[in-house]
Amino acid sequence: MPEKLTPGVWGVVATPFLGSALEVDEPSLVRLAEHYERIGTTGLTVLGVFGEAARLSVEERRTVLEAVVDAVGLPLVVGVTGLATAPVLDEARLVHEVVGDRLAGLMVQVNSPDPQVVAAHLNAVHDATGAGIVVQDYPDTSRVVIRTADLVRAVRAVPSAVAVKAEAPPTPAAIARLTAELDVPVFGGLGGLGLLDELAAGAAGAMTGFSRPEGLIACVQAWRSGGHDAARDAYLPYLPLANFEAQAGIGLALRKEAIRRRGLIMESGVRPPAARLPEALVPQLARHLAALPGEVR
Amino acid sequence: MPEKLTPGVWGVVATPFLGSALEVDEPSLVRLAEHYERIGTTGLTVLGVFGEAARLSVEERRTVLEAVVDAVGLPLVVGVTGLATAPVLDEARLVHEVVGDRLAGLMVQVNSPDPQVVAAHLNAVHDATGAGIVVQDYPDTSRVVIRTADLVRAVRAVPSAVAVKAEAPPTPAAIARLTAELDVPVFGGLGGLGLLDELAAGAAGAMTGFSRPEGLIACVQAWRSGGHDAARDAYLPYLPLANFEAQAGIGLALRKEAIRRRGLIMESGVRPPAARLPEALVPQLARHLAALPGEVR
Amino acid sequence: MPEKLTPGVWGVVATPFLGSALEVDEPSLVRLAEHYERIGTTGLTVLGVFGEAARLSVEERRTVLEAVVDAVGLPLVVGVTGLATAPVLDEARLVHEVVGDRLAGLMVQVNSPDPQVVAAHLNAVHDATGAGIVVQDYPDTSRVVIRTADLVRAVRAVPSAVAVKAEAPPTPAAIARLTAELDVPVFGGLGGLGLLDELAAGAAGAMTGFSRPEGLIACVQAWRSGGHDAARDAYLPYLPLANFEAQAGIGLALRKEAIRRRGLIMESGVRPPAARLPEALVPQLARHLAALPGEVR
Amino acid sequence: MPEKLTPGVWGVVATPFLGSALEVDEPSLVRLAEHYERIGTTGLTVLGVFGEAARLSVEERRTVLEAVVDAVGLPLVVGVTGLATAPVLDEARLVHEVVGDRLAGLMVQVNSPDPQVVAAHLNAVHDATGAGIVVQDYPDTSRVVIRTADLVRAVRAVPSAVAVKAEAPPTPAAIARLTAELDVPVFGGLGGLGLLDELAAGAAGAMTGFSRPEGLIACVQAWRSGGHDAARDAYLPYLPLANFEAQAGIGLALRKEAIRRRGLIMESGVRPPAARLPEALVPQLARHLAALPGEVR
Repeated sequence: MPEKLTPGVWGVVATPFLGSALEVDEPSLVRLAEHYERIGTTGLTVLGVFGEAARLSVEERRTVLEAVVDAVGLPLVVGVTGLATAPVLDEARLVHEVVGDRLAGLMVQVNSPDPQVVAAHLNAVHDATGAGIVVQDYPDTSRVVIRTADLVRAVRAVPSAVAVKAEAPPTPAAIARLTAELDVPVFGGLGGLGLLDELAAGAAGAMTGFSRPEGLIACVQAWRSGGHDAARDAYLPYLPLANFEAQAGIGLALRKEAIRRRGLIMESGVRPPAARLPEALVPQLARHLAALPGEVR
Repeated sequence: MPEKLTPGVWGVVATPFLGSALEVDEPSLVRLAEHYERIGTTGLTVLGVFGEAARLSVEERRTVLEAVVDAVGLPLVVGVTGLATAPVLDEARLVHEVVGDRLAGLMVQVNSPDPQVVAAHLNAVHDATGAGIVVQDYPDTSRVVIRTADLVRAVRAVPSAVAVKAEAPPTPAAIARLTAELDVPVFGGLGGLGLLDELAAGAAGAMTGFSRPEGLIACVQAWRSGGHDAARDAYLPYLPLANFEAQAGIGLALRKEAIRRRGLIMESGVRPPAARLPEALVPQLARHLAALPGEVR
Repeated sequence: MPEKLTPGVWGVVATPFLGSALEVDEPSLVRLAEHYERIGTTGLTVLGVFGEAARLSVEERRTVLEAVVDAVGLPLVVGVTGLATAPVLDEARLVHEVVGDRLAGLMVQVNSPDPQVVAAHLNAVHDATGAGIVVQDYPDTSRVVIRTADLVRAVRAVPSAVAVKAEAPPTPAAIARLTAELDVPVFGGLGGLGLLDELAAGAAGAMTGFSRPEGLIACVQAWRSGGHDAARDAYLPYLPLANFEAQAGIGLALRKEAIRRRGLIMESGVRPPAARLPEALVPQLARHLAALPGEVR
Repeated sequence: MPEKLTPGVWGVVATPFLGSALEVDEPSLVRLAEHYERIGTTGLTVLGVFGEAARLSVEERRTVLEAVVDAVGLPLVVGVTGLATAPVLDEARLVHEVVGDRLAGLMVQVNSPDPQVVAAHLNAVHDATGAGIVVQDYPDTSRVVIRTADLVRAVRAVPSAVAVKAEAPPTPAAIARLTAELDVPVFGGLGGLGLLDELAAGAAGAMTGFSRPEGLIACVQAWRSGGHDAARDAYLPYLPLANFEAQAGIGLALRKEAIRRRGLIMESGVRPPAARLPEALVPQLARHLAALPGEVR
């Protein structure tokens, strides 16, 4: 069976675009991935929701995967966007072809409230690909609402599960139950908004697209060495920005602009129909960034 | 500019599956398409929501398209499932390759409440493919809610629009406005549930997956020759079944079973995570079918 | 324990309003209630969602109850709008005061997905009032989604339950299970849209606000005497209107106008924020009414 | 015309309950209200969503209002729960009777996406009561989604509007527009989650039920004296708790327990069907409270 994911911070990589045609900007993507490696991220998650995977062509997905595989030596989780087995296998084949044994896990969404349906789907994906499965419970994207008890049932029936990504708010109580009843690591997401509470509930770390992953890393490291209060102190300077970036609908645009402003990507455009950056919020984004610890502004 | 869709009944073709692996059943698909042609359907819509397009692999989509193209000489509308331009263009390329000039329209979903975003998307799809665009407003699938006035604005800005498929209930008032303010034909869908009221509101016909398309055809033909009362009389025997099949969530399974029972397809399985046929409803389905006019049981 | 509701058709009474102030129109209300009695309705449901109870003052609710109690001798179900025990008891006290032993049941909404919470609530209402409880599962209004198995659990724990009103679509499968596992009568609602299928699933009848309750009565009577096919034949002439009136959001306005046009109420206004009658649909409403059997136009 | 609300922090008062019957606990309520006055709250908001108004009887609402009126000299905003004019007037009459000229504003929910419907409703409430209107845009409770431009239109047509409470996330961009286009103060709510960003967008302050209103006050005061950075520093120690308390569904239970733990109320029970305190989160709540500045633990 595939190895469980290493606890820590997995960065969900944005896909930078260039120009009015919003073409994939490989150099920016490489720079971004390298930055994640440099700061000590545990691994990278590519083609997630924050990576706008559902707005890329197949060739662009390949381009993104190749660029990240070449740029860094980190273990990779790769997301798939479909909810049914056949199209997910299409996506998985591409991932296997490009990422090979660099793949730490294929991130597949919970696709039904019925744990048997979920388990059959995830097992079919593993059987066809050999990949470890990161089980993503993200109703905001999937529109699937599963009860925590049923998610436990589903994951128990998937021996190849290497992690759960718990993104059905409120997450802390769910994570407390998932970590108590499962022997796979559970990661929080949602931009790091609830990271402290998720760690307290037993989370193995965060897997999310916060523009300042240094904050997530500082928080998780402080948690390990000093417990809750240390983690709180470490995360506090980042929390206002995490809140700001977590705004419904516009979060992606805000995060890309926040990444751009630190020089990692050239432009902050998002592909439609994602909401564009609200101009009225740019000054406040600038204030948030100016207030961050020096090295991560 | 592409020609507008011909008014009438466009059948949305189910994708039949076989066995526990639920593999695409081409002979059944061919038989189904031929049946549609035989009964006088205006055209066929392939790879729609009812065709479970979002649960097919790319190769299976190709198989479905090829089978239908070969089986019948009808004009074809082909659906795409993505909401963003790049993946829609992937889908559109396959359609173009297989369907060629048999394509009467590419059915693309409204992807934003903002008419400018919608129009830019649809125009980009046309520009890249030359295809006429069937604008599908189906919030139950797309999760996008657009106001009717904004849908009018969007469609007016898309010279290549060849039809609107109006599936945001309540549809009759929307269709009344769309037909008054647009010069493209507007079709109802939603299983034919509101066909009479949609015709009265100015609809050009129906484009939907009702298991007895003969009923839709009889209704539309009667409408043309005899007006409302004739259409009502013609449709009445079918309405209880249309209502039954329109049940949320389980409608697809009910329709496929209803099609199977007339011998057009071998099996009625649906791909997960779609809900399976509720056994408790099978006797009532049988009653509905037994009550239909003789030739369409 | 209170007696179970008598199977049959319970009419949900509209509250007619007069003038630009939309004041309660008692004479129309009396005429409407008398009509229901005259045509052989099993009982009346007052202050339901269709009665716009949530848009009436306490005094107006009293007025409505008094008028109906005085006008007819039918058994009455009275709806309450709150989801918590204390305000429901306020409403129940008024009902008890005005309706007394004419009360066949107090219709209380399912207020939680948790069957224990639901049962505690319903039992508290019964304990304080002695009333039989009609358990209404109507997520469109309550925003509460309960699984059918949990609804069974809840109702089993409420000895005073006299009926279930099943209005969580798709209703037929739910009603099949509820009637198999409970010994209380289960009624369909939702404007009679699914009446045939609900009867086939074991429903005891309909409790709804269809503008032509004669159709519901004809259907249920035919079901009893002649089974499914007779019921189908009896209901068929009414089904296009039932569908038309069931349109989301505008159904209330359509139904009141349909009632007005048969002379039972003076005006068809609905209280804001309910949607007003869409003018574009009035001609089609007229067509539907003209096509009805003579005596109920 | 009524005076606009004073900028600052308006505390939304919880309704404390006692025992298994969850009866209103007046002494705790008085203690809570006095605490708000002592710490320098600008005013109090009573019978809001956080006050569980929709789960109180009419007599209990009266009790709550009387207790607060007697306990403190602060100006009061009082919430109403209905969405239609007649029941809102019932509620408003009680408020007028008990609160009299202590009433700074009646908080009424946006009840329609149509600005004309909203304005007619709010004007009718003012005309009947003379009360200034606090316009609450809170779709999570009302289920009404209004576009910001239409909210502006509505408020402009209500001369008696004394404030807007903006609780439709993402709030900062909406507040920026509302404050730019309206001359009434706009308050944030939602537990203070976005207070910093709302102040930056022009908000006049906060009106919410955060368990440590001292944090809201410190933030607003710092904003006035020192601008964004001072407000950020002042609010930072409270932000982890604000996030924790803002969890969907369980926030009310968490807040009441957090208030109980500082000795202001006796018990932290919430009335069903509100979700109870998840035991698994109590240790983390304790950690959050232990980390607060000394005087507000």
